[in-house]
Amino acid sequence: MNFLFSDYKESKPFFWGARCGMSKDEKKKIDADSNIIYVGNKPPMNYVTAIMALLNSGNFTEVVLKARGNAISRAVDAAEITHNRFLTNAEVTRIDIGTETVTNEEGRKSNVSSIEICLAMKKTEK
Amino acid sequence: MNFLFSDYKESKPFFWGARCGMSKDEKKKIDADSNIIYVGNKPPMNYVTAIMALLNSGNFTEVVLKARGNAISRAVDAAEITHNRFLTNAEVTRIDIGTETVTNEEGRKSNVSSIEICLAMKKTEK
Repeated sequence: MNFLFSDYKESKPFFWGARCGMSKDEKKKIDADSNIIYVGNKPPMNYVTAIMALLNSGNFTEVVLKARGNAISRAVDAAEITHNRFLTNAEVTRIDIGTETVTNEEGRKSNVSSIEICLAMKKTEK
Repeated sequence: MNFLFSDYKESKPFFWGARCGMSKDEKKKIDADSNIIYVGNKPPMNYVTAIMALLNSGNFTEVVLKARGNAISRAVDAAEITHNRFLTNAEVTRIDIGTETVTNEEGRKSNVSSIEICLAMKKTEK
């Protein structure tokens, strides 16, 4: 998911979390093991594809979409498109909103809203 | 809350829900009795003020923020600003996302994502 993460990071010219100090290889490794998709400025369908790839890979039963600022509405779009059109047996199990403090290149701090949407496959009854 | 609702409606040139067929007076009456705030294109602080007015009026213990499309991120902003800066004893009790089908003036249907954020005052222990 590194291509999505880098888009997310580059869309906002500021520091976010511990990942920003990592090299590209370190990030790639973590992102390959992770079920987190960072939603940025790409079209919603890119993220839908990423969600389906993760859920269909068999490694994860749930996926976490993270977005902040204006990308929040795109994360909601991606979750809804996945749920309504492609994976009807996936459901939204958790939604959290929060605020993150980010520092821009000039050192000024500002607050930005964030969202976490957790999508999981429904358990089929035997 | 009529001023906020009209902004919300005008921001999108299409039909949404049953309210659109109502006269201005009917809308005003319903909005005065309702704890729903429709988030549109105004600055987030306008909605924060509306939330505080409703919660401090004594008529409601909870407020529902509704938004769709690009306004979703603004609704999250308003909820977070209220919770972090102005009413620290208010908490987010429920977040729902969904999809609404809207018809534009040419009769074409399209889907748009929506969000409902429920903010309630914490119960103080006696």
